[in-house]
Order: sequence, then C-alpha cells, then structure tokens
Amino acid sequence: MIEPIETVIEHLKALPGIGRKSAERMVFHLLNAPESEVAALADALRQLKIAVHRCQRCHNLSVDQLCGFCTNPRREQTALCVVAQPWEILKIERTGAYHGLYHVLGGLISPLDKVDADDLTIGSLVHRVQAEGIHEVILALEPRLDGEITGMHIVSLLKPLGVRITKIAQGVPVGRDLEFADEITLGRALQSRTQL
Amino acid sequence: MIEPIETVIEHLKALPGIGRKSAERMVFHLLNAPESEVAALADALRQLKIAVHRCQRCHNLSVDQLCGFCTNPRREQTALCVVAQPWEILKIERTGAYHGLYHVLGGLISPLDKVDADDLTIGSLVHRVQAEGIHEVILALEPRLDGEITGMHIVSLLKPLGVRITKIAQGVPVGRDLEFADEITLGRALQSRTQL
Repeated sequence: MIEPIETVIEHLKALPGIGRKSAERMVFHLLNAPESEVAALADALRQLKIAVHRCQRCHNLSVDQLCGFCTNPRREQTALCVVAQPWEILKIERTGAYHGLYHVLGGLISPLDKVDADDLTIGSLVHRVQAEGIHEVILALEPRLDGEITGMHIVSLLKPLGVRITKIAQGVPVGRDLEFADEITLGRALQSRTQL
Repeated sequence: MIEPIETVIEHLKALPGIGRKSAERMVFHLLNAPESEVAALADALRQLKIAVHRCQRCHNLSVDQLCGFCTNPRREQTALCVVAQPWEILKIERTGAYHGLYHVLGGLISPLDKVDADDLTIGSLVHRVQAEGIHEVILALEPRLDGEITGMHIVSLLKPLGVRITKIAQGVPVGRDLEFADEITLGRALQSRTQL
C-alpha cells in the first residue's frame, strides 16, 4: 500500500473498534470524497483538542468554563451523580431517569493500572458536597472491582459528612433471557429484589 | 453533545461502516489521546488528498506518475486485470494468484446511477491493449448487473482486436456451507464445473 494511505490506515487502526479492513474502507471512501470533506474532517479533529476542555466544577467535557449541566438552572441542584468518564453521562441522560448534576472522576482507582485516589477528582467531589448543599450522591460506577474499590473509598470520605449516598442497582439486564445472566448478577438481583 | 464533539461525530458517521456509537467511541478515545496523536491523524488525512493521485497508465492510486505495478519489471507485461476500483487490486494481490498488470475503470457502467462508458477509463483500456502488446485481459468485475453490463461492453470493444478475454470464475465460495449459496451462484457453479 502506498505510504500516504498506509499512514492514515495506521492512525485509524489505533482507534477503538477499527480493524485493518474497516480502516481501508474508510480511507478508500475518503480518497473518493471531495477534498473539502476530508479537510473539514481534519479541521474538526484539530478543533476537538483546541476547543474542548473540562468543566471547572464537575469535570465534564465543555467548551466553556462550566458545562451545560452545571449552568442549567432546571437541573436538580442537590443531587450529584458520580461517573468515571464524561461519556457515561450520555448513557445516563439517555435513560431520562436522572435530572440532577454530575461529577466526573476521570477514571477509577485501579491498583493494577497504578491509578490511585489522588489521580482522580475525588478531593473536588468532597469539596462540592460540603460547599454546594448536596443531599444525595449517586454512584454510577462500573460493577467491577475498580468501580467497587472507588465507590468504597468515596463512601469512606463522604459518610462523615452526613450526605445520603446511593449506588445504581445491580440486577438482571432488561429484555435479555435470564439464561444468559451470570451467577453473580443473578445473586445480586435476588438480594436486591423489589416488592410488587 | 457539545458542538466540537458533535461536529467530529457527524464527520465520522459519514464514513462507511461507522454508526453513531462507533463514532462516539472514537471521539472519546481522541479526547483522551495526546494532542500530537490527533494532530498527526489530521495531517495524515490532509496529506492523503494532496499526495495521492492516479497512475497515468492504469489509473491505480499512486504518489508518482506511474504506480508500483506499472513500474515493476517483474510483473507479467502482457496480462491486464480489469477492476472497477483501486482497492479491488489489494484483494486480488492477497490471493497471490495473479502477477500481471492492472487497469482500474474507476467504476462500472450503471444506468441507474447514470454512469456510462465515457465516465470510465475504457477508452484508455482499449488504447493499452493496442499499444502495449497485451495477450490477455482478465475481467474481475462484480458478479452483478453493473459488472455484467460493463464486462459485455468491454468485450464488444476488445473482441475485434483479437486479444484473449477471460473473466474470473463464478461459483460457490470456498469454506462456506453449500446450504447458504444462492440458486444463481449454485447454477453458475454447476455450469462452470471443472473436471477432476
């Protein structure tokens, strides 16, 4: 493959979910596309890193000092939903089941990946709970080891402040056959059974 | 979604095989990637349109006036494999079964898409067959209507020149259950059966 094409393929392959074949298809599409379209994509990519920052309050992605959630007066101002990464906010918003504010940790405590509490925005979370009159902190972290460790650490810091701390329920996924639920998930679903 | 992110997602979604979810995953990866990595991708994309041209002889993609196949003296100089698009050359090369030259039509005759013979490099193909002492022209075109029409048109132009014209065999795909072969494919496979 000639060099300029191979270079783009190598860069595209570094993206999540893109293999060699997908990268080739994308490049051949771009080769047939108008130059203006490819230039617009290149500009948009550069602009991404120049224009997108972190919200100074909740650490969500934002073009301004504060993000759209933090500046929206219609959001409940006394609830904080804690997530590891900004894109998890999207998933929660799509449920339509939450109307409060967010706090983005920037990752999870992970002994394996050498990420400890100081690498995350946990200090800022504690400060917000104290300073902003938060009534409830909802932990929406991955139901895996790193998420559990991070959650326990946050609980240990927030508990003394007297704020209500909850975490999203673990149970069987909606719309899937029970057959495919693993034992731990099914066990948690039984423990957390709800009355009808 | 904030504007600079949405812009990149819209551009990525325009690429083949990329849906909204894949585009989001790619953007969030880029947001976490070093600025130099994103800048390198943007540069590579621009370079793609600046540096890549068409080979003046076979119309394959090339950085130079002639492509790597046309300038390679070890390729058989008397065989031409006719393909619709440059990326189909890759597929043929991966088989290791062909060692001649190529000719890229730039598409297929398609009454529906208003592509006619004059939009393709068919004139240049006829010229090459006359000027380059070609002994065999192999048609490797899609086994669908547009490919058939294009092939028939090329045959009508090349037949009078006395060159041997062949087309790649149609039959059942190797390694698939016969059960999944459609009737037309199976019919062609029977017609073109080979003696053992």
